[in-house]
Amino acid sequence: MGPHPAVAAIRLAVRRVLHDVLNDLARTPAAASTPTTSTAAGSRALMDRPLVLAACSGGADSMALASALAFEARKLDVRAGAVTVDHGLQNGSTARALDVVHRLRDLGLDPVEALGVTVGRQGGPEAAARDARYAALDAAASSLGAAAVLLGHTRDDQAETVLLALARGSGTRSLSGMAAVSGPGGRYRRPFLLLDRETTRKACVAQGIDVWEDPHNADPAYTRARVRHEALPVLEKSLGRGVVASLARTAQLFRDDADALDQWAAAATREATVDGDPDHALDPAKLFPLPSAVRRRVLRRAAITAGSPAGSLFSRHIEETDRLITGWRGQGPINLPGGVEARRSNGKLVFRRTTAAE
Amino acid sequence: MGPHPAVAAIRLAVRRVLHDVLNDLARTPAAASTPTTSTAAGSRALMDRPLVLAACSGGADSMALASALAFEARKLDVRAGAVTVDHGLQNGSTARALDVVHRLRDLGLDPVEALGVTVGRQGGPEAAARDARYAALDAAASSLGAAAVLLGHTRDDQAETVLLALARGSGTRSLSGMAAVSGPGGRYRRPFLLLDRETTRKACVAQGIDVWEDPHNADPAYTRARVRHEALPVLEKSLGRGVVASLARTAQLFRDDADALDQWAAAATREATVDGDPDHALDPAKLFPLPSAVRRRVLRRAAITAGSPAGSLFSRHIEETDRLITGWRGQGPINLPGGVEARRSNGKLVFRRTTAAE
Repeated sequence: MGPHPAVAAIRLAVRRVLHDVLNDLARTPAAASTPTTSTAAGSRALMDRPLVLAACSGGADSMALASALAFEARKLDVRAGAVTVDHGLQNGSTARALDVVHRLRDLGLDPVEALGVTVGRQGGPEAAARDARYAALDAAASSLGAAAVLLGHTRDDQAETVLLALARGSGTRSLSGMAAVSGPGGRYRRPFLLLDRETTRKACVAQGIDVWEDPHNADPAYTRARVRHEALPVLEKSLGRGVVASLARTAQLFRDDADALDQWAAAATREATVDGDPDHALDPAKLFPLPSAVRRRVLRRAAITAGSPAGSLFSRHIEETDRLITGWRGQGPINLPGGVEARRSNGKLVFRRTTAAE
Repeated sequence: MGPHPAVAAIRLAVRRVLHDVLNDLARTPAAASTPTTSTAAGSRALMDRPLVLAACSGGADSMALASALAFEARKLDVRAGAVTVDHGLQNGSTARALDVVHRLRDLGLDPVEALGVTVGRQGGPEAAARDARYAALDAAASSLGAAAVLLGHTRDDQAETVLLALARGSGTRSLSGMAAVSGPGGRYRRPFLLLDRETTRKACVAQGIDVWEDPHNADPAYTRARVRHEALPVLEKSLGRGVVASLARTAQLFRDDADALDQWAAAATREATVDGDPDHALDPAKLFPLPSAVRRRVLRRAAITAGSPAGSLFSRHIEETDRLITGWRGQGPINLPGGVEARRSNGKLVFRRTTAAE
């Protein structure tokens, strides 16, 4: 008898990603130059094997991930480790993190580390916790020399992300949700992006793995918790059970659209850049005939390149800048976040930092 | 004292659209050749004035629309009329339609017509009613010689449309919702697309206009009614009151994105079409390097041009066709809806109708 279907599903998802990681490693020159330090034929010495980490909160999604990684790594030339982040936001969070470390070691993972972080305030509590978490994961991946970090986000998380972006009235890029591969050098991988959360729960139960739910996940003070426990269940009730899958599928379509439009915007930026201009000035006459979706992306890129923080650049900033092209009547410079100004003069559009950023 | 703010808002919205309609008419040669048949200086004879119709169900949105059209048309060189569609789906619907006709005449609109339609079954009850309604509106607009037909869709309708498209997992084009200008020659105009439904209700109350709500709007057997009465209120509760405005804003961003990608796909189709080929065959080598979002649109256009009905072409059809380009291993033809097949042979991709459509 094979494993429980849910266990088979999580293992298959992780196995596919591990194959991708090993294929990518084989293609990079650094890995290709050092594959023959193995001591025995066909199997590399343990420390020479690429290390793959699971990022684990102790919840069902990431405990399922860690268990599947431990299982699959044994069959491949891969070392499996894990990290858990202690956000320090609740009493007892450090003891909780140590407990997760023990449970991850019990699964056979090694190394396992708890990463303590200090959560700031920028962008609200959820964004600040996320920023601190990824900074810690980046640092741990680098110091441990990990080839990849697996994240346990499921299709349900993806649907929540899309719904949150919709509620903000964000553009196509935000609505494309989380990527299967992201981060520097494609470091982060999300094997469960097409699996539902329920499958990870069942896989933990079937394997007798205790899980711990972060109380923040059910705290209605957090927008994501309200989306999870209020909004999505009602949407499923009024629109049908397929709404989570539809949102996730839509995210993929958005991602493809956003990629294509970014490609066009990059080409349009090259073509509109005034040759030899020290400020990388753009030629408004070349931007004018572009579709507005492309022109806005060109302007956004230019503002960010000049130092405007992406997170503070709203569509009203870009629309106002766009009027320097489509509604030109000699208006003055537009002030953008980060002390950047966009100015049209002498037939050129220039983005320049005028004041030191805070 | 001026009018109630809600009344001022609906009038302003209609006034802007009437100006657009008159500007568009002035630009077309037919209108430009006959503007001087006026009997008195500055004002054309009544029957020479362009006719603008309000499509009116008797509900608050469209009664507000009709009242604002009647008011604004008096100040412009415009004749204001109205039509109401009798779907014949409920007992007493004909008497109801006649009642709406009387109320529209009381507002000073002329001509006013009730249009009886027979609702089929294709695509489900809501789609069938919509198809019958637009066919009747098209016919009435043509026979009455109307320059434009105003529709009472509000920002709330737009948010519902986006949410319904999301639930289906539709692409960017469906998610872009309803356009402010649509139909043959830009015949349909939606002046209230940025106004909320509540404003139209208040405008009716302030003007003492009785409204009648279609019971279908509250019937939970209809998906849109469930979105309106269940899904959106809960989304507003969990995500904030701005969610309707955000969905409507997102629709506009999607529309711009879809326009730009359609433009790219049209150019790519021209470049990839094999010169002089009688079947308008495409060159797979020229499609291969395109971003997938563009390539899929090229394939979709080609399938529709060959006779595949747009409403039956799903993303799985396009993905399978795409593998003739990105995963070519000599596979056979792909069967698409409407008896169309996509076949790759002799280095060309051909879309061809092989059987008579039903």
